[in-house]
Amino acid sequence: MRAAVMRQQQIVPDTVPDPVPGPGEVLVKTLACGICGSDLHALRHADEMMAAARDSGAPAVPNLLADVVMGHEFCAEILDHGPNTLRRLPVGARVVSMPVLFRGTRLHAIGYSDEVPGGYGELMVLSEPLLLEVPNGLPPEHAATTEPMAVGVHAVAKANVGPRDVPLVVGCGPVGLAVIAGLRLQGVETIVAADYSERRRALARHFGATHVVDPRERPAIDAWREAAGARSALIFECVGVPGLLDQIMRDAPPQARIVVAGVCMQPDTIRPLLGVNKELAIQFVLAYTPDEFARTLRALAEGEIDVAPMITGRTGIEGVADAFRTLENPEAHAKILVEPWR
Amino acid sequence: MRAAVMRQQQIVPDTVPDPVPGPGEVLVKTLACGICGSDLHALRHADEMMAAARDSGAPAVPNLLADVVMGHEFCAEILDHGPNTLRRLPVGARVVSMPVLFRGTRLHAIGYSDEVPGGYGELMVLSEPLLLEVPNGLPPEHAATTEPMAVGVHAVAKANVGPRDVPLVVGCGPVGLAVIAGLRLQGVETIVAADYSERRRALARHFGATHVVDPRERPAIDAWREAAGARSALIFECVGVPGLLDQIMRDAPPQARIVVAGVCMQPDTIRPLLGVNKELAIQFVLAYTPDEFARTLRALAEGEIDVAPMITGRTGIEGVADAFRTLENPEAHAKILVEPWR
Repeated sequence: MRAAVMRQQQIVPDTVPDPVPGPGEVLVKTLACGICGSDLHALRHADEMMAAARDSGAPAVPNLLADVVMGHEFCAEILDHGPNTLRRLPVGARVVSMPVLFRGTRLHAIGYSDEVPGGYGELMVLSEPLLLEVPNGLPPEHAATTEPMAVGVHAVAKANVGPRDVPLVVGCGPVGLAVIAGLRLQGVETIVAADYSERRRALARHFGATHVVDPRERPAIDAWREAAGARSALIFECVGVPGLLDQIMRDAPPQARIVVAGVCMQPDTIRPLLGVNKELAIQFVLAYTPDEFARTLRALAEGEIDVAPMITGRTGIEGVADAFRTLENPEAHAKILVEPWR
Repeated sequence: MRAAVMRQQQIVPDTVPDPVPGPGEVLVKTLACGICGSDLHALRHADEMMAAARDSGAPAVPNLLADVVMGHEFCAEILDHGPNTLRRLPVGARVVSMPVLFRGTRLHAIGYSDEVPGGYGELMVLSEPLLLEVPNGLPPEHAATTEPMAVGVHAVAKANVGPRDVPLVVGCGPVGLAVIAGLRLQGVETIVAADYSERRRALARHFGATHVVDPRERPAIDAWREAAGARSALIFECVGVPGLLDQIMRDAPPQARIVVAGVCMQPDTIRPLLGVNKELAIQFVLAYTPDEFARTLRALAEGEIDVAPMITGRTGIEGVADAFRTLENPEAHAKILVEPWR
């Protein structure tokens, strides 16, 4: 099959072996797969990702220095069933899945594995028990955003939003937009969002932000303070660059809760005294639970979240390397989808 | 009056003006005042403490570069009532108080103020409404530990200890010991505590740690794992040195909660990916609420906490500088009390 392969810190189109479905697995054709900021990070910081996985005690650390077909935000169509499958869904069914593959005694992270391909290739194998059928004729390009939007739903769930909380979302890339959508799903009424990009601020409004601010014009916390009055601060860090957590700790009001949904790959320096003096709480979040993933798909299918404006580009396999470069500029794009059969 | 004065990064005995009680204030004679690790920090890092207070948006930043009579862990005896006092407690009553003074429109941090003296001097003025009478004939040297022990009671309250949590207390100086005591007050049965000092490990056992570990002999987290089995990790950082938070994040199991009770004065570097990969939560804590302070005094008076073994030294005003030097060595001491009239 054709695939965009991460090889020696480059993305190169190449022909690679077709994946073969093992027991309990299905072979699928990738219909659409979003490019995630983490993939851009992985291309540059594979060593650090592997070191952090090792230091975190991850059961198996993938070799990201070998050839990897990335892509973990996908919608696909069933082509064939492997051995020992229940065939609950027929060939031709459109599906999404959490990007993990159970194989034998091992769990592979689809999109960050040198053994099974992700969605930047024409074909994938998926674990049958994880398949969710795409309902309501939801287009594949929208279904493919289930994964990134579930990240926001999960971050909001971990935040335990209370009636006195007013969220400030720092950064309105895909993670920030997903958090805003997750907050709206929970019925949060006042949502302040900050981003340097006008395009992203407009998207933030689309997803439900009631107040948007350009931090070049005004400190985000000032806009938050005006909107929140005496209510509590719940700050979502959705950027993931060194220095931002310390800046948020500096600006946060006393007793603020900070949810770190941005993924900062490098070591980062904070001033603990800022945390102590204001009794700040920091919750790091990752991914989602199976029910949050399924809930997100339903929300997309039922029109509770409209992701259409977030999809700002599409490309075939040959264009993935270019798309990665384009995404380095946050003003130009939000989500670019890879359509391997395009 | 005589006092041990912080002056140009030294502690010097000197004669300073007697404080005069203003409206709503009482004049007291200091009976005993504990030396706190934060005072050692202040002596060395006054600039950083002031900068952090400024960056944290503190309403008033004290000038710690001027002469300051430190000391905020005190028990005292009422000598006189200022104007506009209710005289709820008579002259001669023994009292403790949270170390804050309301004066006019301002709030002074007793022990970190260049305007009102703390407990390393013979006399202080206190806000009458904050006074708590020492009950049950509790000796002044024990009552003086209300403040540091309340820090532990508060840290435990902020931690929301649940029935599935097994705490690991990292560092068994006064803060760690107070946390252990706070955990016992809450009825927590399994408590793991780590410290390099044999003396401090013995104190940890006295206050209620069920398992103690010398991290030179065995990683603290291994001892915790053996004691906790499949239960949840609640890790108290009670040291406050750069690098320790990152180390705890590296060793913590997934979903662990980390309560930062140690006060690290310097900028500190963490690897956010460790937090993300394991969805860690970090809660910084500071001080206590008025009810926690009063509850701690009751616990001391009713014998629920026995602080006697923690008091490892006593000194008069002339010996405060030496005591500061002695406390640099964590093996030698836990809590040294200043008795200004000694």
